[in-house]
Amino acid sequence: MPVRIQGVLSPVVTPFQRDLSPDPERYLRHCKWLLANGCAGLAVFGTNSEANSLSVDERMILLEGLVQGGVPAAKLMPGTGVCALTDSVRLTAHAVKLGCAGVLMLPPFYYKGVSEEGLFRNFSELIERVGDTRLQLYLYHIPPVSQVPITLALIGRLLKAYPGAVAGLKDSSGDWNNTKAVLDGFAKSGFDVFAGSEVFLLANMRGGGKGCITATGNVNPGAIDRLYQNWRSAEADALQAEISATRGVFQKYPMISALKAMIGHWRGDPDWATVRPPLVELTAEEQHSLQAELKATSFDMPGLAVA
Amino acid sequence: MPVRIQGVLSPVVTPFQRDLSPDPERYLRHCKWLLANGCAGLAVFGTNSEANSLSVDERMILLEGLVQGGVPAAKLMPGTGVCALTDSVRLTAHAVKLGCAGVLMLPPFYYKGVSEEGLFRNFSELIERVGDTRLQLYLYHIPPVSQVPITLALIGRLLKAYPGAVAGLKDSSGDWNNTKAVLDGFAKSGFDVFAGSEVFLLANMRGGGKGCITATGNVNPGAIDRLYQNWRSAEADALQAEISATRGVFQKYPMISALKAMIGHWRGDPDWATVRPPLVELTAEEQHSLQAELKATSFDMPGLAVA
Repeated sequence: MPVRIQGVLSPVVTPFQRDLSPDPERYLRHCKWLLANGCAGLAVFGTNSEANSLSVDERMILLEGLVQGGVPAAKLMPGTGVCALTDSVRLTAHAVKLGCAGVLMLPPFYYKGVSEEGLFRNFSELIERVGDTRLQLYLYHIPPVSQVPITLALIGRLLKAYPGAVAGLKDSSGDWNNTKAVLDGFAKSGFDVFAGSEVFLLANMRGGGKGCITATGNVNPGAIDRLYQNWRSAEADALQAEISATRGVFQKYPMISALKAMIGHWRGDPDWATVRPPLVELTAEEQHSLQAELKATSFDMPGLAVA
Repeated sequence: MPVRIQGVLSPVVTPFQRDLSPDPERYLRHCKWLLANGCAGLAVFGTNSEANSLSVDERMILLEGLVQGGVPAAKLMPGTGVCALTDSVRLTAHAVKLGCAGVLMLPPFYYKGVSEEGLFRNFSELIERVGDTRLQLYLYHIPPVSQVPITLALIGRLLKAYPGAVAGLKDSSGDWNNTKAVLDGFAKSGFDVFAGSEVFLLANMRGGGKGCITATGNVNPGAIDRLYQNWRSAEADALQAEISATRGVFQKYPMISALKAMIGHWRGDPDWATVRPPLVELTAEEQHSLQAELKATSFDMPGLAVA
């Protein structure tokens, strides 16, 4: 069984060429920068990666490109949960065979109001069909986007049925009470809970969690990791306040477009801003305003600027 | 340009083997039965088809199987809108090359709260990339499930930019006021509006619409078509009341599972009931109760029972 990732993970934004095809070179470069600057792991193909705007084959080719390019598979936690069970199985089996540390799985998200039994069957079928003891499955709870929650009862059933495979959860509900309930219910069973935003990183660590998987990890991994490394220290609350302030600025804008715009700005590579429909790039005004707001904080990105 | 389908279309339920793989033989048989019993066309790969529980390749193989099996492509309006633009382009180009009468397109449905501009770019990129004058694109408005609406403003922009390709809309909002606004705004521009349920069929015809695309078309196509054929007659309101009553019974149950259970029941083929996760089959109790409720109405299915 691979060693489980703990710490700060970034749901890596996926760069596109002008023709909207994925750009493996910019991608590899950004992934390596993240690992060198605070990220313990890379949750590639998350919500902030526009993963669901990519085909199954596009994801598999990008993932292979990272591993071939020197990103250790043991640092990778790709998103592999999609609407069709057969696709989720294919993506997950592929990730496990590549040696990825784990996979982060959305529930199937087209049908709404589905039953706990139906979701249990989805994950159960997936685990059985992948049929590989190396599988470390992290459940992805993001009801504001997926609209299909991972409930406490579902976690309990899955952990009981597949204690070796079900490794943890990312909570992007934005609801600390839910994260706390998951921690209280399952953290002691070896279930690794990641906050879905660094805003909850300190609380999550104090509650027995293992880190965070956060959009702004794409641009602020060093400061977020500093809190992770020092969460027991006297300065923890101050570190939390600092990274929460940066997060607060980004959250005023459409997150994915804002991250890509700023990476492009700092790298002097404006094409980085490209997103696939249905997303749209920031307007020039929005980008200027975001830059101005960031300048007014303690935030800077020297590493990215010279990478 | 192909002749546009008008009348009653069924979003054909997709039969699965016990191992959850698609069953092309049961599928072909059901499609032929529908066309022989009232359906003017088949909206394969709709919401009720569990289309988003199928991979892109599974859809393409099933569609080819229908055409090779003798279903006229001119009767087919497959669903081809998925989350990833590249997949939507692949599915749509495939359908157009096969000679399908049209395609029914969901907006990309993972991200919520996306802009009109982002959705316009999605459909615009799709039309440009498919690049085939035969393309007849029907927009699929189903906010209760997709959570991403097709607004009046978006329809207007698309019709103006691509008058030859943008052919119509299926309205599954369940909100007659919305259907009426679409009819009032666009029906005279040659934009074909289909009600998403036969409950609105008569109102839709009276308002200038072209028919309906309805789940219960899978089991009740004859009676629904009778209203379509006779909507100007004195008996129209009575025909509407009759099919609405049958619809009302099915709507008390999870629709897809109920349709499959009853098709299996009437065909003496219980495996028909199989659904893919995250859906679950009806319980035995639910099925008995549904059968009893249907017996108490005027509804019967002689054609399906002996097909």
